[in-house]
Amino acid sequence: MYERTLSVDEIVALDAYWRAANYLTVGQIYLQDNPLLREPLQPEHIKPRLLGHWGTSPGLNFVYAHVNRIILERDADVIFLVGPGHGGPALLANVYLEGTYSEVYPKVTQDAAGMRALFRQFSTPGGVPSHVSPPTPGSIHEGGELGYVLAHAFGAAFDHPDLLVVAVVGDGEAETAPLEGSWKGVSFLNPLHDGAVLPILHLNEFKIGGPTVLGRTSDEDIASLLAGHGYDPHFVRGDDPMHVHATFARALEACVDTIGRIQRAARAKGHITERRRWPAIVLRTPKGWTGPKEVDGVKIEGTFRAHQVPLASVRTNRAHLRMLEAWMKSYQPELLFDERGRLAPHLAKLAPKGERRMGANPHANGGRLSVPLDLPDIGAYALDVPHPGAELHESTRRLGQFLRDIYRKNPTNFRLFCPDETNSNRLGAVFDIETRCLVERTTPDDERVSPNGRVMEVLSEHNCQGWLEGYLLTGRHGLFATYEAFALIVASMATQHAKWLEACEDLPWRAPVPSLNVLLTSTCWRNDHNGFSHQGPGFMDTVISKKGTVSRVYLPPDANCLLAVADHCLRSKNHVNLIIIDKQPQLQWLDLDAAREHCERGASIWKWAGNGDEGEPDIVLACAGDIATWETMAAAAWLREKAPGMNVRVVNLVDLMALASPEEHPHGMPDDRFIELFTEGEHVVFAFHGYPGAVHQLLHGRPQAARFHVRGYREEGTTTTPFDMVVLNRTSRFHLAMEALRRARRPPEHAELLIDECTAILKRHSSYVREHFQDMPEIRSWTWRSR
Amino acid sequence: MYERTLSVDEIVALDAYWRAANYLTVGQIYLQDNPLLREPLQPEHIKPRLLGHWGTSPGLNFVYAHVNRIILERDADVIFLVGPGHGGPALLANVYLEGTYSEVYPKVTQDAAGMRALFRQFSTPGGVPSHVSPPTPGSIHEGGELGYVLAHAFGAAFDHPDLLVVAVVGDGEAETAPLEGSWKGVSFLNPLHDGAVLPILHLNEFKIGGPTVLGRTSDEDIASLLAGHGYDPHFVRGDDPMHVHATFARALEACVDTIGRIQRAARAKGHITERRRWPAIVLRTPKGWTGPKEVDGVKIEGTFRAHQVPLASVRTNRAHLRMLEAWMKSYQPELLFDERGRLAPHLAKLAPKGERRMGANPHANGGRLSVPLDLPDIGAYALDVPHPGAELHESTRRLGQFLRDIYRKNPTNFRLFCPDETNSNRLGAVFDIETRCLVERTTPDDERVSPNGRVMEVLSEHNCQGWLEGYLLTGRHGLFATYEAFALIVASMATQHAKWLEACEDLPWRAPVPSLNVLLTSTCWRNDHNGFSHQGPGFMDTVISKKGTVSRVYLPPDANCLLAVADHCLRSKNHVNLIIIDKQPQLQWLDLDAAREHCERGASIWKWAGNGDEGEPDIVLACAGDIATWETMAAAAWLREKAPGMNVRVVNLVDLMALASPEEHPHGMPDDRFIELFTEGEHVVFAFHGYPGAVHQLLHGRPQAARFHVRGYREEGTTTTPFDMVVLNRTSRFHLAMEALRRARRPPEHAELLIDECTAILKRHSSYVREHFQDMPEIRSWTWRSR
Repeated sequence: MYERTLSVDEIVALDAYWRAANYLTVGQIYLQDNPLLREPLQPEHIKPRLLGHWGTSPGLNFVYAHVNRIILERDADVIFLVGPGHGGPALLANVYLEGTYSEVYPKVTQDAAGMRALFRQFSTPGGVPSHVSPPTPGSIHEGGELGYVLAHAFGAAFDHPDLLVVAVVGDGEAETAPLEGSWKGVSFLNPLHDGAVLPILHLNEFKIGGPTVLGRTSDEDIASLLAGHGYDPHFVRGDDPMHVHATFARALEACVDTIGRIQRAARAKGHITERRRWPAIVLRTPKGWTGPKEVDGVKIEGTFRAHQVPLASVRTNRAHLRMLEAWMKSYQPELLFDERGRLAPHLAKLAPKGERRMGANPHANGGRLSVPLDLPDIGAYALDVPHPGAELHESTRRLGQFLRDIYRKNPTNFRLFCPDETNSNRLGAVFDIETRCLVERTTPDDERVSPNGRVMEVLSEHNCQGWLEGYLLTGRHGLFATYEAFALIVASMATQHAKWLEACEDLPWRAPVPSLNVLLTSTCWRNDHNGFSHQGPGFMDTVISKKGTVSRVYLPPDANCLLAVADHCLRSKNHVNLIIIDKQPQLQWLDLDAAREHCERGASIWKWAGNGDEGEPDIVLACAGDIATWETMAAAAWLREKAPGMNVRVVNLVDLMALASPEEHPHGMPDDRFIELFTEGEHVVFAFHGYPGAVHQLLHGRPQAARFHVRGYREEGTTTTPFDMVVLNRTSRFHLAMEALRRARRPPEHAELLIDECTAILKRHSSYVREHFQDMPEIRSWTWRSR
Repeated sequence: MYERTLSVDEIVALDAYWRAANYLTVGQIYLQDNPLLREPLQPEHIKPRLLGHWGTSPGLNFVYAHVNRIILERDADVIFLVGPGHGGPALLANVYLEGTYSEVYPKVTQDAAGMRALFRQFSTPGGVPSHVSPPTPGSIHEGGELGYVLAHAFGAAFDHPDLLVVAVVGDGEAETAPLEGSWKGVSFLNPLHDGAVLPILHLNEFKIGGPTVLGRTSDEDIASLLAGHGYDPHFVRGDDPMHVHATFARALEACVDTIGRIQRAARAKGHITERRRWPAIVLRTPKGWTGPKEVDGVKIEGTFRAHQVPLASVRTNRAHLRMLEAWMKSYQPELLFDERGRLAPHLAKLAPKGERRMGANPHANGGRLSVPLDLPDIGAYALDVPHPGAELHESTRRLGQFLRDIYRKNPTNFRLFCPDETNSNRLGAVFDIETRCLVERTTPDDERVSPNGRVMEVLSEHNCQGWLEGYLLTGRHGLFATYEAFALIVASMATQHAKWLEACEDLPWRAPVPSLNVLLTSTCWRNDHNGFSHQGPGFMDTVISKKGTVSRVYLPPDANCLLAVADHCLRSKNHVNLIIIDKQPQLQWLDLDAAREHCERGASIWKWAGNGDEGEPDIVLACAGDIATWETMAAAAWLREKAPGMNVRVVNLVDLMALASPEEHPHGMPDDRFIELFTEGEHVVFAFHGYPGAVHQLLHGRPQAARFHVRGYREEGTTTTPFDMVVLNRTSRFHLAMEALRRARRPPEHAELLIDECTAILKRHSSYVREHFQDMPEIRSWTWRSR
C-alpha cells in the first residue's frame, strides 16, 4: 500500500472539481437564471425566496471530491451518507457533476439549460427539497432529523463485505444523543463478513446560533473520546484549501489502507477474536468556507452566521448582489464549465464511472439489489389447535422457530435486532443456529455470543432501529423486536423512515425496499411484573397517523395468526409493519388454515365463539389484540352460560387498519363489509389492545360510530397481576360482560342481577390478589369451553 | 482536605450496613413471612410469584452505604439517582434502614412486623412497584426506561449550588443513546452557581441475556472515553468486599474533594472561563455480588444469570430453598437486627439524620422546595389589536419578551431549554439579559454565549427534556421550546414524565411540582422551507393519550392568546402542558382582554367572524391552531362575500382537551356547552393543526360526531410555499369553503359555481407557485376584513 502526498497537478485538479461543486451549490441557493454568469448578475436572476444551507456545504463538497478520487484509484465500492443533510445542494451538485443526476432526471441536462433547471428546482415548489432526501440519487439517509447517520451507515455495511460507507457527521449532529450512542457500531462490525464505515467528523464549530460542544473541545479530548469509542482518529484542519487537500488526501488514504488491512487480516485468518481499532477522520474547516468573509462589517465565514444564506438581501441590495457575483466568480466558472455549460473534460474524468459513482451506487437504491427472502413454509411451525381456547402456548416461540429457519436459509440476507430480550421474548430458537453479535472479548460465561453472530442485541433502541433501517434501505430484510412501551423511544425514527417511504412513492426509479417490521412483545397488559413505566401502547398511535400506503398495524390473537402475519410482512415492501403480540403463555384459537383465512380477511366474525348465529345479534363483542381477545372470549363464554337467550356476536380484528375508511387506507373495509361484521346499528363492546383513542379515530365516519364502546389501556397500572391489569383498566371479561348487558338490544330480564354478580366477582378479585399475590384460581385456570 | 484509608473498624461497620441492605433486598424478592429467619425457612414463607432484579442491587446498596458515610462526615447535601432502577428493592432497603420509609409509610415500621410488611408489599398487588419509582422516597428518577439518569442529574444540579447529585449509571443503561449523549452535561455545568454531579459508572458486565459493550471494554478505553467527555475517572474493581470498601471509600473521598476544590476555586474567583475536568467513578463488581455463586452446576454470580431472581423455584425445590436460607443467613441477620427486628444501634448511626438522609432530602421531593415564579403581568407584552386580522406579527416574539422578564425576576428559578433555535424561534429577547450557557472556551465571534448563561441550548432534545425534568422535579420552573416535528424524539421521555406525574396523584406526601411546559414552534405548516422531514405534528398524539389529570394541549391562534396560555401554564403544577404555535408572522385576532376570556373558556364562538349570528347556522367552521384559524377566517370571509345569505358560524378552540368527554378530561366541556358551540346537528368543517385523527378520537361519543369534517395534516409536504402546504393537505381556505358549501344545511343556489371557482383558484395557485416560487399576491397580502 502507498501513502503519499498528492502532486501539485492533482491538487489543482481536485480543487477545481471542488470549486465546481461549490459554484453549483451557491447557484442552487441563489439563482433562477443566468446560471453561468455569462451576463452581469441582475436582481431578476435571483430567486424571490432564498432557501438553503451554505455553512456545511463546502465541507461536504470537499469530502465528496476526495472520496471520488479514492474510488477511482482503487475501484472502491463506496456510498456516501451525509449527517448534515441540510447541505442538500452540495450533494445535488456532486451527483449532477458526476452525471448521475441527468440520468435519473433527464430534464436536468449537463449543459447550461440543465444547470439552470438544477438551480431553479432547488428548494422551490414542485422542485426538490432543500435537504438530502429520497429524490437525491445516492442517498439512503435524510439529514432532516439529526442523529442517525452512523447507525444507518453500520446497518448498510453489515453483510456487505466489499462496501465502504463514508459517513459525514456534522458537529451539530454530533451533539445529539442518537449519534453519540452510535459510535459503538464498531463493537458489532465484523471485518470478516461486513463492510466498513469510515466516520468523518466534520467540525465547523457552530450550529445555527452558537458554538457546538465538540467544536469547542480540544483535539486532545476528541482524540481521547474517539479512541474510547474504538477509533483511531486522523486530524485534518485548516482553511487554506491547498494545505487541506494535501493533508486530507493523506488521511483518507491512510484510513482506507487501514480498513483494507483490517479486512484482509481477518479474512486471511478466517476468524476474529476481538475488535480492531477502526480509522476515523476529524476534519476542522471554517463554516461557510470560501464564502463571504465579511458582510457589512460583520464576520460571516467561520461563524454561525454562515449557517444558511450568508447574503440574504441580494435582490434588493446592490452591494450584496455584487458580492454574490464576486463570490461565485471566485470559483472561476469559466475554467470549470465549457461554452455549453458542461463540466470541463479534465474535471469530468475525476468522477468515477457507472455504478462506482456514489450517486449511482446500487447500494443506495437498495431495492435494486434486494433478493426476496427464501421463506420456509409456516406450516412447519404452526400449532395444532383442534379445539379453540384449550391450551396455553407462548405464541412468539413459534415465531422464533420460523426466524431460526429464516436465518438458516438466508444467512446473509436477514437479521434480527433486539435491545437485549431475544430469549426473554421467546425468540430464542434463533440461537439454535445463530449467535449474538459482539465483536469484543467473549468469555466462557457467555451464552451464544460471538463476533460472527448476526443476532443484533444492543441495549439501544436507536441503534436497533437505525441499523435495521440501514440494512433495509440497502436491500436486506429484518425484524426489530422490542418492548412495546420502549418502542416509543424510536417513534421519531420510525416516523422519519415512514416519511422516507412515503416520499419514495413518487420516485419510480427507487426500487421498493423490504418493509420495516417491528414486533412489539412484552406488551402493556403483561408487564404486570415490571410496572407502570413498562406499560405503554403509544407506539401504535405513531404508526397509525402515517399514510395508508405505508402504515400497517397487526394484532394477531395467537400463534398461528402471528405466523401468518409475519409471513406476510416479511414478503412485503415499502411498508412499516407493526405486529403486536405478547410473549407470555396465551390461549390459542385458530388452526393454521383458519388463521390464514382470518388474517387474509383482516377481521372476521368468530361464529363458534358467539351465542346464536341466526339473525341480528343483540350485542357485538369485538376485539383486537391478544389479551383483548382473551377477555372477550371469556366474556362471551360467561354470557353464554349466564344469559343464554342473549344473541352475542364475536368479531375479531387482526388488521387494525381494516377499521379505517377505504379512502384513508387501502386495507379499510367498505361500509357494507363493516355493516356485515358490526351490524348497522347494534352496540359494539370493543376490547382493544391500545389506547381507546386509536380505535375512536379510525371509527370516525363509520355508520353510527357512537355505538362503539371501546375499552383499552387507560393509563392504569403498577406492579400487579395479569388479571389485575385488565381490571384496573376496566377491560376485564366482567367489565365487558357488564357493558354488553347494559347495551344489548334485548338484555335478559336478570341483567341487573348479572351485573351485580360481575361487580361482586371484581370485588372478590381485588381482595384475593392483595392477599395471595396472584390471580384467583378460576382466572388462572380459565379455558374456553365451546358450545 | 484529607484522603485516607478507612480503619478496619470503619470497614467492618460499613460492611455490616451493606449486608443489612442486601439482606433486606433478598427478603423483598423472596419472602412473605418469617422476615428475620427466626424459624427454618419453609415454602409457605416464599411469595407465590418471585419478582425483582437482584443483579444490580448489591452494587447499589454498596454505593448507597458509602455515600451515607460521606454525608455524615461532611454534612453533605446529596441526592441519589439510580440509573439501574430495576434495583428497586435496594433503594427501598436503604430508605427503610435510614428510617425515611417508616416516616412516609407509617405502617412499615422499623421492627419485625414492619420488615415483614416491607417484604410482602414489594412487587405485589396493592404493594409497591419493583422499580425505583414515585412511591420510593428520595427518588426523582424512575429506572424503567433506561437512559436518562445523567440528564436528570444535571437538571437537578443546575442552580442548586450546594447540592451533590450522585448518579449511578448501569452498564446496560450506558449502552443507550440518551445516556451516551448526556455525559456532555459538564459542558453546561457552572461550579459558580450550580451544584455537582458525580457519575458512578457501575459495570457488572452483563445485561439480561448477554454482555454489555462497556462491560467488555478495557479500563484503558473507558478512561479514554470518559476523559474525552471531560471527566477524570477513578477506577475501583474487585469482588472481595473488604478490598472494594477500602478502595471505593478512597475514590469517593477523592472525588468529593475534587468537586469541593473546583467549586471553591470558581466561587473564590467569582468567574470561570472554561470547563474543569470533573471526577467520576468506574466501579466494576460482579453481577449479583454476594448472591449464589452456582446453582445446579451453573455459574450465577458474575454472569447474566444473576440479572433477576437467581433461585427461581425455591417454593418447590427443597435444595434451592436451603440455598436461599444459607444465602440470606450469610449476611448474619442476627448481628444486624436486634430482637425486635430493628437495625442494631451501631449500624443505625451510620445513616445520616433528618433531611440529610437521601430518602428524605427535600430536593427529591422538589415540590416542597418550590417557589412560585414571580410572573410579570402579561399586559406589558400584549399586542394592541384594535381590529382583528389587520396586522402580521410574530407571536412568539411577545412570548420571548415575557420570558426575558421572567428571567429578570427569577434569575435562579427558571430556565429555557431549546436545541439551538431560541433566536430562530423569535424568543431572542431573552438574550437582552441572559446568555446561552456553554462552559467551554468562548470566542469574540460568539453572540451571547457564556459559562454563566442560563439559556440552555444544546442540539439534543434528550438533554433539553431530561435537564428540564430534573430541574422541575427538584422544584424549579422551565420551558422547552423546540421544532414541532422533532419533539417526537422525546415522546417516550415525555410519556415517562407524564406517568411519573400520574403515579404521584396517589402520593399525598409528594408535593406538586411545576408543570412540564413544552412549546412547539416551527410547526408543520410553516416548515415549507425545510421540507417533509420537518413536517410532523405527531407529538400532540402522545400527550393526548395520557391521563386527563396530567395532559394539556393548547393551540393559541395569536400572540395575546399565547401570552394568556403561557401565563396559565407557568403557574400550573403537575401537568404536561403542550403549547403549539408557529414563529412566522401571522395575523392577530384578539386583544388581551378577549384573549384572556377566550383562553379561559377554552373554545368560543367568534361572532364577529361569522356571517349572521341570529338563529342556527347553516354550517359551523371550527378551527384549532394558528394556521387552521387563519385559513378558516379566510374561508369565512370568502363565504361572506360570495354567499352572503349563508349563515356561517366560526368557532375557535384554544384548549384541545375541551373536545374530550368531561369523564375523560377535566377540561372536557359538557354536552350542553358542546351543542351551544357546535349546534345539535349541523355540519362542522373543522380545520385542525395536527393529524385529523387527534380530533376524531376526542369527538367519539359527542352528539352526531360524524357531522364533523376534520381537515388537518395528512402527511403531504415538501419544500414549497406556506400556502402550498395547506393546499397539499387540503386544508386551505378554498378547501374549507368548498366543504362548507357542500355540507351547509341551506347551501346557496350558486354553490356549484362557487365550488368551481375554488377549484379554479387552486389550479391557478398550483401553476403560480411553480412559476414564481412564491404564493400568489392575493394570498400573501390577504388580511381579514370585518363586516
